[in-house]
Amino acid sequence: MLDLKKIISSIADAGKKIFKKKDIKENDLVSIISLCDELLSNKGIVFGITVARDITNLYRVLSNENKLNFFKMINDKYKPDFSKVNEAIENFTKSQNEINLSYLFNAAEGKRRELFRRLNIAPNGTSIIVKMREELLRFLKENKNLIGLDNDLRHLFKAWFNPGFLKLEKITWETKALVLEKIIKHERVHSMKDMNDLKRRLGEDRRFFCYFHPALEDEPIIFVQVALTEGLGKSIQELMKPKSNSEKKLNTATFYSISNCQEGLARVTLGHFLIKRVLYEIQEELPYIKNFGTLSPIPGLAEWFFQQDESKIKNILGQNNENLSFLKSVNLKIGEPRIVSNKDNILKLVAHYLINEKDNNGFPLGDVTRFHLRNGAMIDDIVINANISDTGYKRSFGIMVNYLYELKNIEKNHEDFVNNKKVVYSNKLKNFL
Amino acid sequence: MLDLKKIISSIADAGKKIFKKKDIKENDLVSIISLCDELLSNKGIVFGITVARDITNLYRVLSNENKLNFFKMINDKYKPDFSKVNEAIENFTKSQNEINLSYLFNAAEGKRRELFRRLNIAPNGTSIIVKMREELLRFLKENKNLIGLDNDLRHLFKAWFNPGFLKLEKITWETKALVLEKIIKHERVHSMKDMNDLKRRLGEDRRFFCYFHPALEDEPIIFVQVALTEGLGKSIQELMKPKSNSEKKLNTATFYSISNCQEGLARVTLGHFLIKRVLYEIQEELPYIKNFGTLSPIPGLAEWFFQQDESKIKNILGQNNENLSFLKSVNLKIGEPRIVSNKDNILKLVAHYLINEKDNNGFPLGDVTRFHLRNGAMIDDIVINANISDTGYKRSFGIMVNYLYELKNIEKNHEDFVNNKKVVYSNKLKNFL
Amino acid sequence: MLDLKKIISSIADAGKKIFKKKDIKENDLVSIISLCDELLSNKGIVFGITVARDITNLYRVLSNENKLNFFKMINDKYKPDFSKVNEAIENFTKSQNEINLSYLFNAAEGKRRELFRRLNIAPNGTSIIVKMREELLRFLKENKNLIGLDNDLRHLFKAWFNPGFLKLEKITWETKALVLEKIIKHERVHSMKDMNDLKRRLGEDRRFFCYFHPALEDEPIIFVQVALTEGLGKSIQELMKPKSNSEKKLNTATFYSISNCQEGLARVTLGHFLIKRVLYEIQEELPYIKNFGTLSPIPGLAEWFFQQDESKIKNILGQNNENLSFLKSVNLKIGEPRIVSNKDNILKLVAHYLINEKDNNGFPLGDVTRFHLRNGAMIDDIVINANISDTGYKRSFGIMVNYLYELKNIEKNHEDFVNNKKVVYSNKLKNFL
Amino acid sequence: MLDLKKIISSIADAGKKIFKKKDIKENDLVSIISLCDELLSNKGIVFGITVARDITNLYRVLSNENKLNFFKMINDKYKPDFSKVNEAIENFTKSQNEINLSYLFNAAEGKRRELFRRLNIAPNGTSIIVKMREELLRFLKENKNLIGLDNDLRHLFKAWFNPGFLKLEKITWETKALVLEKIIKHERVHSMKDMNDLKRRLGEDRRFFCYFHPALEDEPIIFVQVALTEGLGKSIQELMKPKSNSEKKLNTATFYSISNCQEGLARVTLGHFLIKRVLYEIQEELPYIKNFGTLSPIPGLAEWFFQQDESKIKNILGQNNENLSFLKSVNLKIGEPRIVSNKDNILKLVAHYLINEKDNNGFPLGDVTRFHLRNGAMIDDIVINANISDTGYKRSFGIMVNYLYELKNIEKNHEDFVNNKKVVYSNKLKNFL
Repeated sequence: MLDLKKIISSIADAGKKIFKKKDIKENDLVSIISLCDELLSNKGIVFGITVARDITNLYRVLSNENKLNFFKMINDKYKPDFSKVNEAIENFTKSQNEINLSYLFNAAEGKRRELFRRLNIAPNGTSIIVKMREELLRFLKENKNLIGLDNDLRHLFKAWFNPGFLKLEKITWETKALVLEKIIKHERVHSMKDMNDLKRRLGEDRRFFCYFHPALEDEPIIFVQVALTEGLGKSIQELMKPKSNSEKKLNTATFYSISNCQEGLARVTLGHFLIKRVLYEIQEELPYIKNFGTLSPIPGLAEWFFQQDESKIKNILGQNNENLSFLKSVNLKIGEPRIVSNKDNILKLVAHYLINEKDNNGFPLGDVTRFHLRNGAMIDDIVINANISDTGYKRSFGIMVNYLYELKNIEKNHEDFVNNKKVVYSNKLKNFL
Repeated sequence: MLDLKKIISSIADAGKKIFKKKDIKENDLVSIISLCDELLSNKGIVFGITVARDITNLYRVLSNENKLNFFKMINDKYKPDFSKVNEAIENFTKSQNEINLSYLFNAAEGKRRELFRRLNIAPNGTSIIVKMREELLRFLKENKNLIGLDNDLRHLFKAWFNPGFLKLEKITWETKALVLEKIIKHERVHSMKDMNDLKRRLGEDRRFFCYFHPALEDEPIIFVQVALTEGLGKSIQELMKPKSNSEKKLNTATFYSISNCQEGLARVTLGHFLIKRVLYEIQEELPYIKNFGTLSPIPGLAEWFFQQDESKIKNILGQNNENLSFLKSVNLKIGEPRIVSNKDNILKLVAHYLINEKDNNGFPLGDVTRFHLRNGAMIDDIVINANISDTGYKRSFGIMVNYLYELKNIEKNHEDFVNNKKVVYSNKLKNFL
Repeated sequence: MLDLKKIISSIADAGKKIFKKKDIKENDLVSIISLCDELLSNKGIVFGITVARDITNLYRVLSNENKLNFFKMINDKYKPDFSKVNEAIENFTKSQNEINLSYLFNAAEGKRRELFRRLNIAPNGTSIIVKMREELLRFLKENKNLIGLDNDLRHLFKAWFNPGFLKLEKITWETKALVLEKIIKHERVHSMKDMNDLKRRLGEDRRFFCYFHPALEDEPIIFVQVALTEGLGKSIQELMKPKSNSEKKLNTATFYSISNCQEGLARVTLGHFLIKRVLYEIQEELPYIKNFGTLSPIPGLAEWFFQQDESKIKNILGQNNENLSFLKSVNLKIGEPRIVSNKDNILKLVAHYLINEKDNNGFPLGDVTRFHLRNGAMIDDIVINANISDTGYKRSFGIMVNYLYELKNIEKNHEDFVNNKKVVYSNKLKNFL
Repeated sequence: MLDLKKIISSIADAGKKIFKKKDIKENDLVSIISLCDELLSNKGIVFGITVARDITNLYRVLSNENKLNFFKMINDKYKPDFSKVNEAIENFTKSQNEINLSYLFNAAEGKRRELFRRLNIAPNGTSIIVKMREELLRFLKENKNLIGLDNDLRHLFKAWFNPGFLKLEKITWETKALVLEKIIKHERVHSMKDMNDLKRRLGEDRRFFCYFHPALEDEPIIFVQVALTEGLGKSIQELMKPKSNSEKKLNTATFYSISNCQEGLARVTLGHFLIKRVLYEIQEELPYIKNFGTLSPIPGLAEWFFQQDESKIKNILGQNNENLSFLKSVNLKIGEPRIVSNKDNILKLVAHYLINEKDNNGFPLGDVTRFHLRNGAMIDDIVINANISDTGYKRSFGIMVNYLYELKNIEKNHEDFVNNKKVVYSNKLKNFL
């Protein structure tokens, strides 16, 4: 494979020889916008590599303030031209056919998408555009009017990062250190200190899969970590221990972490594809693994609990309205024994949170819960002290959830959830309610 | 890299276990369309791999007639819904803002593109969809109303086959036979009989570059063949001879063939990107190569000539109106000596054809000429007996053209051509006119 | 992997800068021998790469005559020094211990082996030394006194080409053309015209394995070709036909060709390792293949037959002494019908040849027969018209042999053969005798 | 590449099917020796893979005591047979020719080497045999009579690990973690704590080269670390700091560490080949690097100094006989200021040690000094406080040496050293003496 990156300097040199160099100045909005105009012109089709490279190079050295200005300018300058849209509407209204509609469609698209399509041919283009959206997202909170630009980028990414283009790779101790280092950095659920932490997760009784995109070489997109266990895993701390020699009968794949790596790909959802693919892979490689499920966090539990008033909690717990207010103490210790002694009430509380607390659309409040139920899983178990760590206690008093993927019920569960908002859960959960 | 293709059967088996199997029948339009509906539904997001695979499998075994019917049905069923478009127009007209415009945009897009986006996640999805368009294009001539479907596919391909996603590879005698065999099959300009023919074109004084797409493994997309020569090459037959030992001072890259491999990618233009990339590559690898140009066919010359009447020809040739009618003889022999003896008149004729004969838009009639001029080349020379072969004589009496890519003038030539329709040519050509 | 070959020129340049250049002349024995002296000196250890490269470069351009002279000179100059040997003998005789014996051993080795050990570090060293032996073997017939040099090289190669260092690769249509071209050239049993011929042998129902050595990149060492068949293959021409669609129940691996590629490795036997390894590979990949055997030529049959007198033949055939003299006709046609009509006699004749005709050591006369019996196979069948080709008829009247490798009997057969010279054959063969 | 290791279990299974299994017992010398006999017999040629694998498997689980016994048994059983040697001597003495000499040579070799040659075809054979020698070397100190076995192994390794078979690879942050982990473990000169330590040594202004052997996949054999510096590096601690942004004019390659990884390859010297190869590589890649040298430890300095009596030291230092006895204090602190204040005397002392202190053969006492001088380097400088670490102070009071490889003098220096025992040093050193 000839390496485009390696010839950057060559292109630059050749480019300088081939093309008259305009007076391009660093950190200058006029320069970069005039190049964008050029890229969108006829010339852009033919001399795109050079122009696109110049834009990406200039973008990189813009001041933070000018990055925002740059986004504002392209958001505005290349947005759909309303007069052209109105013209196309008039035309279509007169004669309603597909050809006229396609003119309208093109007018309604504007030129922002095309700008990025052409920018993509710069060396490392895709990578830089993903980075651009990451930076755009930070500005977006304070600059709501950039939403149009963001929508265009997101839709573009949905086409470019179509799961059909992603490559699944197994991460092992034979993976290059460069990639492993990025993996460590991007792990969000159960963070890793160093390579040794990671090595444990690549052991014989573990599986680690990552999606890559061909245009983002050595850049993890999203990855998932799986422990092979005897029954569903019930403790993150157990899963992190060195492999014991005790003869376990591994029969279950416990998915214990899934992390998105590219902030620039926010809301370009790929997680459910990854879980399905990995489920297939494990079935294929390890036919003796019969059960599939997760040991998942409940990120919003503590926050939700802190916001409930006393009466609501009593209502949930019924007559066993024992005082759980110790959970609200800022001094709550990791491994606090009252969590075990109040186990029944706590299980009731969490079961209620998972199953009965809903968002505005009538779906469960927790996004992890929504993610797995939409995928066709069921809530199988609530596990006390499953994550005896600072993060685990802060997030959800150390409590975690097993979601179960029963192959024969996945489709039915999914349809019940999506169509009827039905939350499927085990008999065990029923007892907690 | 985990191989999605290898796990097809596994997925199929797993799929059968996981999902209730509908009564899917082969060569049955109802079955395949109902799967398309499913793929476009919510379920498609989650269970896409299986549904998409089933559709591609069913498509493959449709009868030719049913393939046409299938295209007609999806063209119609998933086209933009005019009532929704009108609704969105009304909405936008009332309040003209970007949000309302984006609703209109979505309504105007219809669902055909989304169908293919989701189909793409099937194993080998991209490859099958490219094949689909190849077959669609054959039906299109007799079924003009399929144009909407074709436009959607073409636009999708422009996003998917963005040059930023293509990989340039050097084809050598170390390339796998599987790929070389496809290269031989796809060469269109100067066809190859077998591997030995190809081997000559991979010699030390030759370069052979091909674009690949990561989702179409081992499938050439478009390739270009270059001979390193002393001055621009003047004879295809010379270029095909074994390397001579005479000490030539190689200083020129003569591009002598460029071929698109995928009919399904028709009008998804990539040729000019390839030429520019290869120009960079050669500069980088071989700094002693100072000149770049082509030895190109004139595909339409003979056909054009046959259609001109006597007076037109006389007009072109001026007073030297010698009789060139021998060119029209069906018995014209390869290497006919009158071609040399009438050289001056013939050069005048061809120069006229290249420079003065225009299409409806005012650009040169020949598409090869348009391609290179748009790329920034100039017409450098017309070469008698440059292709002494059956094809060469049938196409253009054995005559070929050298287009020259002068690095310092490429951009100016391109702009003059695109903006002013100016055909740039050498002093030598001036003398022919 | 850093490529030593790529830096040849660099080394050469660096070498020129680093080392004072002696007056080295091309095709000059004094120059090359003085470099050999240097390589064997202390300096050789430190500056070996440069000196070794100079020697190999000089060797390559020696005239044929000087190559012979070169071999004669190093054969003589670096052979064991008898006076040192005698000294070491005296020393050992005085005091017989391992240390004194190791001095004797070293004296008896001479310096020829060390010369080649050091030459091996030249770029492509191994490859050039193998080539050297190939050329030495040609001289050897007329120059018997070079046998010492040849023995040293052969013993060195036995260490270097230890099967533990060889890599087995599957040859497929995905192998690089460069290698396939060499494979075609080296096939000796059933020759191939071109890549198409080879492609058939790489089909789904075929297997093609080749040993490579890490120091001889892309150079096949020895390869074997296998057809998956229903029962043992009985016709080479059938095996070369395109795959039929008739539903055959493939249950047998028929080895139909094994070829050594490197003449320079003559008598460095690797064939039996290859057969055993491939037998394992096929068992592993294709558990449904239950039987293993060959369809093998009888290279010496015709030649042997021509040398037998009438009475001997009559003796073999017993009372059915019909005249088989038509086989001796120079006009014997491929497919001659008398071969079928005299089938019984011919089978008797061939069975006799295979089983009862012995060499001086009491083993079967045919070397193919010896090879497979030593490997633990048995003679299973004699097949009339198994190779209806010019070569097949010339060699053995179109007759071939099935050797059968019964896994459970391989070891026993091998021991019976090696220790007791027992030729194991099937009941079918018994009937022929 | 078909992976022999992957099919171990397959071979084992196939082996069990194919060959009658003897009563092989674990940790049983009779079993393993009887298999060695078999391997050396005729059968070993044909069924070697299985027998060799069984031996290596049995060896691995021998108790430590039985490993020693095993070595004693094969050392004795397969040593040269003196009666055969004497017979061959008699034969040769009668008629002194090369053929008779080759019989003698074979008799003098014994069967130990052949045993290991055949053992080598076991899966991972080479790796296990290297391990065997590592264990043998530990026994050797107490069991001097095993020297014969060790010599045979070492000579075999000299053939197998011929530099012509080694592959040089650049170690970078793209190398697989598995290999980097081994590199960290094997670094002996300036040890590394973890991957972060290693990462610094793989930076842009560093080079890291390692030799690998094709039969020892992913096993580093020997590696060298180089810093690109402005002038020769003068401080290990500086070299370990993060890359500074100060614009340095890198013009020198400072080799600061070279480590052998395989104890089993002791005295199979490869270091000087590695240094020469890397010198070429750097010249090729970085033409602006003009100087080559080392920053090397003086491992024996402190030990030597402690053994010298007062008068000797006075003698060396001449009239400036200031008291350096503080160096002998067990409380000597890292960075002790008296080292700087006594700089002149210390430099004189070290210069004397390097240049004038000799071993029994008349070469310098320090083995690092001998290694570089033999390679053609000169002593360029002695650097106070070049290694301000515990190890650095213990070994040599923090003092290190710059050896300089002047390309134009390498050969001359080497010859002067080897032939005349001349120690070449700079004018600076001259001043110290």
